[in-house]
Amino acid sequence: MTESLEALKKLLGSAVFVDHETLFKSSIDNLRISKLPDAVIIPENENQIGELLKLANKYKIPVTVRGSGSATTGSAVPIKGGWILDTSHWKKIEVDSVSGIAYVECGALTVDVHEAVESEGWFYPPDPASMQYSTIGGNISTNAGGLRGAKYGVTRDYVLGLEGFLPTGEKVTFGAPLKKFASGYNIKDLWIGSEGSLGIITKAILKLIPKPEDFFCCLVAYENETVALDAVENLLKLGIHPSILEFLDRQTVTSTECYNHNAVFPKHPGCALLLVEIDGSCADITGKSDDLINWAKQDSLSYKIADNVDEREKAWSVRRQCSQAMYQLGDTKINEDVVVPLRFQKELIELTEKIKMQTGLATPTFGHAADGNFHVHIMYNRNDNEHKKKARCAIDMLMKKVIEWGGAITGEHGIGLSKSVYFQMQHSEAEIAAMLAIKKALDPNNILNPGKIFEPFDIWKETRVDVKLPWDK
Amino acid sequence: MTESLEALKKLLGSAVFVDHETLFKSSIDNLRISKLPDAVIIPENENQIGELLKLANKYKIPVTVRGSGSATTGSAVPIKGGWILDTSHWKKIEVDSVSGIAYVECGALTVDVHEAVESEGWFYPPDPASMQYSTIGGNISTNAGGLRGAKYGVTRDYVLGLEGFLPTGEKVTFGAPLKKFASGYNIKDLWIGSEGSLGIITKAILKLIPKPEDFFCCLVAYENETVALDAVENLLKLGIHPSILEFLDRQTVTSTECYNHNAVFPKHPGCALLLVEIDGSCADITGKSDDLINWAKQDSLSYKIADNVDEREKAWSVRRQCSQAMYQLGDTKINEDVVVPLRFQKELIELTEKIKMQTGLATPTFGHAADGNFHVHIMYNRNDNEHKKKARCAIDMLMKKVIEWGGAITGEHGIGLSKSVYFQMQHSEAEIAAMLAIKKALDPNNILNPGKIFEPFDIWKETRVDVKLPWDK
Repeated sequence: MTESLEALKKLLGSAVFVDHETLFKSSIDNLRISKLPDAVIIPENENQIGELLKLANKYKIPVTVRGSGSATTGSAVPIKGGWILDTSHWKKIEVDSVSGIAYVECGALTVDVHEAVESEGWFYPPDPASMQYSTIGGNISTNAGGLRGAKYGVTRDYVLGLEGFLPTGEKVTFGAPLKKFASGYNIKDLWIGSEGSLGIITKAILKLIPKPEDFFCCLVAYENETVALDAVENLLKLGIHPSILEFLDRQTVTSTECYNHNAVFPKHPGCALLLVEIDGSCADITGKSDDLINWAKQDSLSYKIADNVDEREKAWSVRRQCSQAMYQLGDTKINEDVVVPLRFQKELIELTEKIKMQTGLATPTFGHAADGNFHVHIMYNRNDNEHKKKARCAIDMLMKKVIEWGGAITGEHGIGLSKSVYFQMQHSEAEIAAMLAIKKALDPNNILNPGKIFEPFDIWKETRVDVKLPWDK
Repeated sequence: MTESLEALKKLLGSAVFVDHETLFKSSIDNLRISKLPDAVIIPENENQIGELLKLANKYKIPVTVRGSGSATTGSAVPIKGGWILDTSHWKKIEVDSVSGIAYVECGALTVDVHEAVESEGWFYPPDPASMQYSTIGGNISTNAGGLRGAKYGVTRDYVLGLEGFLPTGEKVTFGAPLKKFASGYNIKDLWIGSEGSLGIITKAILKLIPKPEDFFCCLVAYENETVALDAVENLLKLGIHPSILEFLDRQTVTSTECYNHNAVFPKHPGCALLLVEIDGSCADITGKSDDLINWAKQDSLSYKIADNVDEREKAWSVRRQCSQAMYQLGDTKINEDVVVPLRFQKELIELTEKIKMQTGLATPTFGHAADGNFHVHIMYNRNDNEHKKKARCAIDMLMKKVIEWGGAITGEHGIGLSKSVYFQMQHSEAEIAAMLAIKKALDPNNILNPGKIFEPFDIWKETRVDVKLPWDK
């Protein structure tokens, strides 16, 4: 046993785990690249985090914080070894229903936050697709988005304050349970999206909004992607501000229909789809649903209305199943959450088709069409070296164009390991130097989640582990 | 002429001003403490900013950026001398009306941004009371709030990206014209609210929302502040989410009525007031206005409805005039923009009454009652030393209690000079050390707006200049 591990066990005793099962579970996230840590710490109280960090600084041991490990970029993988700090057991949620503020421990599942606040008549809009599994701490660390981004914004827009620890071990609070706060530098928003590399978040203070009274949902079929994306533009021009506007390309719809042995619109198998939802007051929905139906009739093949919870669930089933259904097109999936300006949405879909033609790999794509955030999937077989080469080439093509169009290489997932090779395309040397200067200032020994974001990491040299994770069907 | 000034003139020629009139105008903001700079630079192009900053670093000359100088905290005053960078002439505004995004140069007036985007059917919610004069660059530097904060948030919530220069002179862009962006550290939000001390902002990319179709406004009179603030709580419990909920105490209303020789509610002179506005779709307003009227009838002395633009302007007149009217109560005003949790709103008003009793100074208070952000004014005569002592004591009493209640010493104005002595009450040593480490990392020579936020500055040793500023009536 190394000196540092001995000191750790002496300091934190029963909070320290070194059995293989625990180490392996904490060695992996949804990227499925594994690197075993030296120990996993499940702290019994907050003070232990400060103590742990001070010890890690003394011995210069990497510390990687972990929620449920649903990150798709490898940001939760302890790629430089060291210690895992697992905070997924801290799940308390308290709602101040007068002020519309929730106090949430970092390990609370996002879905549980939704339920807790909705039972008090409030609403927490961010809804990453992973919300059944992902923790609030993880959502904040990656600034998770979700389906409602265009209308309601992203995780960052709902975080009033954060409690936690500086990399050097001091307990701090940035922000407050107040809707206005203009004192000092905003380190809260610097922590958000920093993937656990600038501080440890233990508790979040979340801003809530009143729960929308009603919704109206509509699933619309189109001949192809171009017609569907033209319809998106028409909808936005009408001044209808949907809470959800999901686009599914024909590859996505076809693979889901094969998976189900059932077409979404039996007369129009393999069409492109838009899933649109508006929400608001009852009066508002009554006023706008006719406009939405009229829009849905234009240039479409067919449409279905869903104005109650059961019908909505049916309309949503294609969107809920499509991620899993794609595995018919390859045993491994790369999910690139790029963002493009709205005027390049059609070019992006054309590009995915070009990539498919050139590489022979399937590129099923769906996305949040009101904010330009698309999930372009590259499907390949992990044991086929030719496939791997083509998949890498496909992502290179995609990222180059996204940057050329003024887009973002990530809208929701963060950089982690898997996007680190494209990071320097997104930001200038001066911008990266400023980020690294901040990292150095707050974490002088580079102990928190080292090896992520800034160091280009070649994921293609690694073997993807064949493991069933909780969200695998 | 010093060596540095000579080098500056050689480098930037006709962009450099040293005449007394220009120096004096740039020596002051709404705090009315004056410190002459050595030169004022009105850059002819962006590149000059980079050159200026590099020169300032070489000679270690302070650089203070300036918009219209409407800051109330002294954050625009070049308290350590040096150079003023005046960017108030860059006023271009472009609206991308498909994506709902505006590109705004730092010197554009906030009111002009409102008009430009509303003419395209969009809405930029932040509405600081200074918006007729203040610039977007200044609003971003202080994270300005406004009347619509509780429903719509503050300036930060609408900034997608910032272009500008690092303190060391490199051109950078943080964020992008995209509604989702999750790449790298979020230095954009670190710049917002940093009062020009971490970078120079030249352009902002703003997120817009659809312009609300309709509004409904109501002015309600109450016997006293307690009844009015109970009514606020009842309104929030009803699930009505007002876009504006302004509270005016009896001191504020009485001084405005004296100023106008006219009572707002002739049968109830000197009452406490709530000014409530809801906005939304036409259907929504129709549905909610009855609820609002029913609420307005409860426990009130009287109420007035305003559902068109003219009546709304009349209802608003007391709120618009009250700031100026207060000068009947003292020739100098201290405006403390504190924030308290909603459950302490009544205690805050009781405290202002206690301060009035103990000091004999008037403490007229109004505020944004749905977000706990109140403007507590201390009125005194600047040439009366006894008054000055009492005013200082009044602010000490206020800030101590606000912190005790878990509130903020500033919700909208920032720290600047005037709140710097209270800064250490708001944040712990470790939190301030982290902020200073970031300052040092980005601005190693401490050239950008030195002497603000972190260095306690005793404004009471300074003489307030008797000068008429553009916003003085």
